[in-house]
Amino acid sequence: MARRNYIFDTIRSVYALYGFRQIETPAVEYLSTLMGKYGEEGDKLLFKILNSGDFKAGVTPEDYATQGPGKLAARFCEKGLRYDLTVPFARFVVQHRDELQLPFKRFQIQPVWRADRPQKGRYREFYQCDADVVGSNSLLNEVELVQIMDEVFARLGIRVSIKINNRKILSGMAELIGAADKIVEITVAIDKLDKIGLDNVNAELRSAGLTDEQVERLQPIIALEGTNADKLARMHEVLQATESGVKGCEEVAFVLQSLVDAEGHSLLRNEVEFDSTLARGLNYYTGCIFEVKALDVQIGSITGGGRYDNLTGIFGMEGLSGVGISFGADRIYDVLNQLDLYPDTTTTSTRLLFINFGATEAAHCLRLANQVRSAGIPTEVFPDSAKIKKQMSYANANAIPFVALVGENEMQQGVVSLKNMTTGEQQNLTIDEVIAAVRA
Amino acid sequence: MARRNYIFDTIRSVYALYGFRQIETPAVEYLSTLMGKYGEEGDKLLFKILNSGDFKAGVTPEDYATQGPGKLAARFCEKGLRYDLTVPFARFVVQHRDELQLPFKRFQIQPVWRADRPQKGRYREFYQCDADVVGSNSLLNEVELVQIMDEVFARLGIRVSIKINNRKILSGMAELIGAADKIVEITVAIDKLDKIGLDNVNAELRSAGLTDEQVERLQPIIALEGTNADKLARMHEVLQATESGVKGCEEVAFVLQSLVDAEGHSLLRNEVEFDSTLARGLNYYTGCIFEVKALDVQIGSITGGGRYDNLTGIFGMEGLSGVGISFGADRIYDVLNQLDLYPDTTTTSTRLLFINFGATEAAHCLRLANQVRSAGIPTEVFPDSAKIKKQMSYANANAIPFVALVGENEMQQGVVSLKNMTTGEQQNLTIDEVIAAVRA
Repeated sequence: MARRNYIFDTIRSVYALYGFRQIETPAVEYLSTLMGKYGEEGDKLLFKILNSGDFKAGVTPEDYATQGPGKLAARFCEKGLRYDLTVPFARFVVQHRDELQLPFKRFQIQPVWRADRPQKGRYREFYQCDADVVGSNSLLNEVELVQIMDEVFARLGIRVSIKINNRKILSGMAELIGAADKIVEITVAIDKLDKIGLDNVNAELRSAGLTDEQVERLQPIIALEGTNADKLARMHEVLQATESGVKGCEEVAFVLQSLVDAEGHSLLRNEVEFDSTLARGLNYYTGCIFEVKALDVQIGSITGGGRYDNLTGIFGMEGLSGVGISFGADRIYDVLNQLDLYPDTTTTSTRLLFINFGATEAAHCLRLANQVRSAGIPTEVFPDSAKIKKQMSYANANAIPFVALVGENEMQQGVVSLKNMTTGEQQNLTIDEVIAAVRA
Repeated sequence: MARRNYIFDTIRSVYALYGFRQIETPAVEYLSTLMGKYGEEGDKLLFKILNSGDFKAGVTPEDYATQGPGKLAARFCEKGLRYDLTVPFARFVVQHRDELQLPFKRFQIQPVWRADRPQKGRYREFYQCDADVVGSNSLLNEVELVQIMDEVFARLGIRVSIKINNRKILSGMAELIGAADKIVEITVAIDKLDKIGLDNVNAELRSAGLTDEQVERLQPIIALEGTNADKLARMHEVLQATESGVKGCEEVAFVLQSLVDAEGHSLLRNEVEFDSTLARGLNYYTGCIFEVKALDVQIGSITGGGRYDNLTGIFGMEGLSGVGISFGADRIYDVLNQLDLYPDTTTTSTRLLFINFGATEAAHCLRLANQVRSAGIPTEVFPDSAKIKKQMSYANANAIPFVALVGENEMQQGVVSLKNMTTGEQQNLTIDEVIAAVRA
């Protein structure tokens, strides 16, 4: 939890610095809200909660005998555990539409549940850390979200590349080669370039029904080279006949331009890269899309997001545009572990342990401990007058950096014998000197 | 969330100051872990999760026709949502018995779920904020927990009375009047003194089977008067023939003595009161018990806890003593609301909003906003160049205290026109002056 809190607190404080407000939604949602939002596979992965009381009411033994588990589950259960934070957020926005001041900037850090087979990197309960702005079409929101991603990883000390693309560019590419109806297949195939290589992508494009000529025409814009400006210029040129392609290029250009100052210096500490192969799996994205990759660890995307134009439409509220990002806390946790990037203070809570030499000494130490705590230093008094060795091993096991030994002699002299557990050094100090030493 | 976080953060930081380590446990536990731990009523209030896949497997239509919902639920569901934090903690301790360094001091702030009918002050999902020490019999733990309760409420600005009693005193009382077998009934009746008055308590004691004489003998120790020392001395005297009663008095006396300094001054900022009528409903308590009441609001107990000697026994690990407290976050929320005790900064996140006058100005403001954020001040740039009135009403609705207006003139002069939304005052400042003004 200490390590997880370090990640959550970092993300939370950056979100707050940009004026996002935290909300939480209940773990339990109506299944009518959740079903049909995550595809057929997703529906199967929803945890369903048995109705309280007489859940059998209305389901006859004949129904039971003749209906399948899917249908019966829907009759036995009206509630389920949330699967992500996006759908509950859309439900929240629609429900509170009359109270919300638009644009509404919210962030949400909560667990979600999936009835999956647990395996490495895939859990049945895990945290999502989302931020979204709804009710504003402005690209300044995209700019801000890139800044937020940059700031979070700068604070965590993880070197990353922030990739940006635009769904309209992908539409333009499909339109250009006369395959606008195959936009989904093209997107899915191109998205795999990193993993399977160009030849396999092309094979997949062909098996999706593109002609050799169509695949050929895609080549120069799949694998663009050069600076962001070079790549954008080339893409703009190729796509100039498609309205959507031009719009996409302009949007990306605006975001990139807004991320440099008047002298052309980047406002970011990490690199941002225009990547025309970035597609993002989820089909509800309609504008800019983002993905963040760690430079020093081989792991998938550790953050992603984008603009969607009709998230609340599924709940009957049309025309509300939104843009959001989601930090993958579990993968970030893995990256920080692998690179050993946690600050020392993250895993130490207690800074000072008073050894317990018996009732009289403990009563004295209790008061000294209060003084140290008043200075804001997490402090413990070992509760039992156990063997010194046991108490010392407690300090070691809990990575407590300082131990205070106050026996009869020290009490009489009004001093504390302070032991530095790292260096082994031990010296007699006043309580004020102890506070200064532990704080340093 | 801003208000809830204020409460959680306060509790969290005090727990950490005393060396408690945070853990979280999954929302979902096996029903075999949860069932039978909260009484029959509790079992009914557990949310049960339908088994994934073919939950019908093994339950024939005949079984379905002949078995009741309780029995069938147990066959359809092997998992449920946690009902409190205590049982999952006991499960955690037993599961990790070989890795834990005792004494183990943990705290846990997480939601719990109860399939209750929702009503005021009673929710189906609510937070508990528990701290427990297991593996130490020392009363210094009790002393520390009282200090923690005192510190939390002092920080929150809520004036409270911390009540302390001991289950051994209640046992002594039962033993004294020859009704040791009626300890539960006596405890339950006396616990209601505050709510129903002495006459009704006595009537309940009689209907529980106590004779008039037995009830008579209880009177002097139910309603003790005077200082803590007076009351304890009187109780000690009356119970001197009962081993358990004497032990209970000594334990309370030790805790109270440890809470004053060498000169006899209290270490606490709130009063602590020995209350022989305090019983606490839960029957697993065996030693000191605590309860906190707000002095300025009529509401039930806002924090409670006590010592239990065999929490992990239900999971086959005997003899591990523990002591813990639990803050009632929802009632504390109500008290803070009623007394209007939230600091101003709690509900304001964003301190400064830059008004958007159009693309050129917004680009300029984006850079200025970065400078303000670098100083740690939560800042927004309104994303759309909407009407000024709309932007101003956004600032008001979100309680943003300062608004920066940077139009063409201000850009040319290199200044920011800063408006204080509380006083209405407006002045032209450099960005450094803006930072200073907003920070002040």
